[in-house]
Amino acid sequence: MTGISMAGLAGLSARGDAPGASSPPTQTTQGAAPIMPPASSSTRRERGLAALNRLTGATGEAVLESLQEIAPDIGDWIIDFAYGDVFARPGLDLRSRQFATIAALTAMGTAAPQLKVHIHGGLNVGCQPQEIIEVMLQMAVYAGFPAAINGIMVAKEVFEERDLTP
Amino acid sequence: MTGISMAGLAGLSARGDAPGASSPPTQTTQGAAPIMPPASSSTRRERGLAALNRLTGATGEAVLESLQEIAPDIGDWIIDFAYGDVFARPGLDLRSRQFATIAALTAMGTAAPQLKVHIHGGLNVGCQPQEIIEVMLQMAVYAGFPAAINGIMVAKEVFEERDLTP
Amino acid sequence: MTGISMAGLAGLSARGDAPGASSPPTQTTQGAAPIMPPASSSTRRERGLAALNRLTGATGEAVLESLQEIAPDIGDWIIDFAYGDVFARPGLDLRSRQFATIAALTAMGTAAPQLKVHIHGGLNVGCQPQEIIEVMLQMAVYAGFPAAINGIMVAKEVFEERDLTP
Amino acid sequence: MTGISMAGLAGLSARGDAPGASSPPTQTTQGAAPIMPPASSSTRRERGLAALNRLTGATGEAVLESLQEIAPDIGDWIIDFAYGDVFARPGLDLRSRQFATIAALTAMGTAAPQLKVHIHGGLNVGCQPQEIIEVMLQMAVYAGFPAAINGIMVAKEVFEERDLTP
Amino acid sequence: MTGISMAGLAGLSARGDAPGASSPPTQTTQGAAPIMPPASSSTRRERGLAALNRLTGATGEAVLESLQEIAPDIGDWIIDFAYGDVFARPGLDLRSRQFATIAALTAMGTAAPQLKVHIHGGLNVGCQPQEIIEVMLQMAVYAGFPAAINGIMVAKEVFEERDLTP
Amino acid sequence: MTGISMAGLAGLSARGDAPGASSPPTQTTQGAAPIMPPASSSTRRERGLAALNRLTGATGEAVLESLQEIAPDIGDWIIDFAYGDVFARPGLDLRSRQFATIAALTAMGTAAPQLKVHIHGGLNVGCQPQEIIEVMLQMAVYAGFPAAINGIMVAKEVFEERDLTP
Repeated sequence: MTGISMAGLAGLSARGDAPGASSPPTQTTQGAAPIMPPASSSTRRERGLAALNRLTGATGEAVLESLQEIAPDIGDWIIDFAYGDVFARPGLDLRSRQFATIAALTAMGTAAPQLKVHIHGGLNVGCQPQEIIEVMLQMAVYAGFPAAINGIMVAKEVFEERDLTP
Repeated sequence: MTGISMAGLAGLSARGDAPGASSPPTQTTQGAAPIMPPASSSTRRERGLAALNRLTGATGEAVLESLQEIAPDIGDWIIDFAYGDVFARPGLDLRSRQFATIAALTAMGTAAPQLKVHIHGGLNVGCQPQEIIEVMLQMAVYAGFPAAINGIMVAKEVFEERDLTP
Repeated sequence: MTGISMAGLAGLSARGDAPGASSPPTQTTQGAAPIMPPASSSTRRERGLAALNRLTGATGEAVLESLQEIAPDIGDWIIDFAYGDVFARPGLDLRSRQFATIAALTAMGTAAPQLKVHIHGGLNVGCQPQEIIEVMLQMAVYAGFPAAINGIMVAKEVFEERDLTP
Repeated sequence: MTGISMAGLAGLSARGDAPGASSPPTQTTQGAAPIMPPASSSTRRERGLAALNRLTGATGEAVLESLQEIAPDIGDWIIDFAYGDVFARPGLDLRSRQFATIAALTAMGTAAPQLKVHIHGGLNVGCQPQEIIEVMLQMAVYAGFPAAINGIMVAKEVFEERDLTP
Repeated sequence: MTGISMAGLAGLSARGDAPGASSPPTQTTQGAAPIMPPASSSTRRERGLAALNRLTGATGEAVLESLQEIAPDIGDWIIDFAYGDVFARPGLDLRSRQFATIAALTAMGTAAPQLKVHIHGGLNVGCQPQEIIEVMLQMAVYAGFPAAINGIMVAKEVFEERDLTP
Repeated sequence: MTGISMAGLAGLSARGDAPGASSPPTQTTQGAAPIMPPASSSTRRERGLAALNRLTGATGEAVLESLQEIAPDIGDWIIDFAYGDVFARPGLDLRSRQFATIAALTAMGTAAPQLKVHIHGGLNVGCQPQEIIEVMLQMAVYAGFPAAINGIMVAKEVFEERDLTP
């Protein structure tokens, strides 16, 4: 229950420089992102760190650091459970996982900071800006126009940070 | 404000028997579903009916029929706006659209009948049963375990209706 | 804190037969329902019972009875606070109050039993069936199509119970 | 799919200077706002622009402009669908429509920017400040005190911008 | 990824007969339930099974069994993460944990089946029926009367199953 | 309908200096907070003011003052209903009441200002910082990680204002 160490967090960005993790996604717009490699021989922590790094890089690290002092255990759970147990599962490609998360957070309308992290994450695993907008437009049908508009405003912020245009 | 005619609704299932629409999806698990064909020359109504039929077949028809007497205009909007304007857009493959909708409805937890329609819809456009379960499992992280469990129970019902096992 | 007595509840329907309370609303579709009469000389309980009876009649009574055994105090609060303090306030006509409540419960999507009570209540104070449907159709824009459709299905049930057609 | 042109947006405020649109609402507190004039001969776009302008004036324009670059199509849908198809429908007066929207957005608690637009809109079609507060007070009963209080704080901001007191 | 075995599930109820686990809670109404015993030497699975059994007994088992066929991994997560990592933590007594869960599920209004499980769970760890009703009454203030009333109806059902009166 | 007077509000902080109200809570971590003293001879207003002061001190006063101008009646209801009728009830200790409120507001994710008030309130009636964090960590299971993380960030802010560390 000591939480993730600062060294562990630093390790996240160090890993971010590793060839496998940092290679830019090469999917075309419609191509599915590769599923995470087989994880049978790795621990939950290893799988979780690899997945977190693959998805969020520095953004995820910042969230974990802000939790470090007050509730370090949730940092552990994010790595071990959310990324190691859930996100790293085979059976669904990473792009589809991110479309699902972006859709849910947009529809819920209560998680703008996390939506921002996951729009970055989607772009990191090969989702195209316009595809992310498409997911949000679709939320107008299922969760109403305000949810869609507020989600689009978060996407706009992320795209501007990355000098992207949809 | 006359809403969709019963003849129009009958047309949905008639179209449902057309070769193009009823041919089983041939995507592999990771292959992206084809995007809707270019729609430039068709009307909103034509695009909407084609998309609704492609996705939901008889299930969607039943929903529209139940709305026919009391609020026919929402049936028009579902076809023209939700399917003709939104769902039929190019820019995102149909499988990804369904993962997004299934994720959102599972996370919201207030739309079990619509979730059921869209799980059927996902299966109709090539989402695999296990992929749909993966989306729901992921919702445990973002919307909590009760939302994920309740979504899985709806999926279970759909899979049983179709004699599928994830 | 003894809760409302059964005699008090019986009194609700007795009051329901009183001329003032049971006279059918005479507003035209666009006419605003009269605001509750000045309440200055009455107690919260008197105002609440009058308002509850004016709005819900037997439907409200059934809800209160089902709460009587397990949590009688919430029955008191519904009469004294929800109806006596809030609903009976001057400053907004009863029709507008019901449109507001019907809109909110439809958008929230978590309160079907209460939505049913308040659709009955809206009809009791002069909201027309088609107006109630209009409110729900409008919710498709703000809370999404599933919320609107599920609300319309509740309205359909109420209209059928009262042999109404929108 | 080119979205609304900037000229179209400029047109909104130009229309805002037209006599019919800019004449201040003359309803008394309890009088119902006039329903939109018969729309049979106008297009969805014309009806939508007229309704948007009638309701929001410059506020709505700002929202559309902020969406223009990143997701222009949702601007089209807001005009054509949300205002042209839904809001411009006869069958419910504009004041009641705004009470419904204000109630829903207050209860949902996830749409402060849109709530602000629609409080302005309500004032533009004849809702009185105190009536808007009444709707929000009523939400304390149906969605809890935090939802009501947060809604009132948004109203306070709008009233201050317009130098109004409830 | 083989999920929990049926033998493991059977083990839950077997453990339910063990003296330590099945001894009735002895707290007075205001006394805090004991915190879970130190867990340092046990595995996540052991801690989770002990906590699940302590809280839910047969009710929890039924939920896990219904998930077994379609999504066995979520059963693992419920035991290892939800109960082993979270619920079994020292730092907050079990009664307070249940009041928190009951409050949240009542306020959310989207998780009736889980609310039922956790009302049973609260009673199993020493929450008194009237205390559970108090938590729900309090939700009228924070999430509105419909949420409180719907929660009370679930509690009523549980109390009747156990022949309890609040 | 004159709302609470400023004198009444001043009275709140004056009472805050009274020995009984301001004495620091002496519970140990696991000890239950005392239930409010018998209220039979006091009025709703007296009970409400005492409870509000016991819980929130200056924080609650600030909220009431901000509502004073625009909607004074909701200030009355907060004192008389939320605190006088509900919170001041015997039958559940104050610590448990605060855990319940903190859990619900964290799970709902739409009430950050009120969550802040009630974290202060929890600390004022003897909840320990780490216990409040435990409640929020538990919400990761029931309402998802974003809800838990956003709640923890509000707690962090409160703890920093009070120079506390969990």
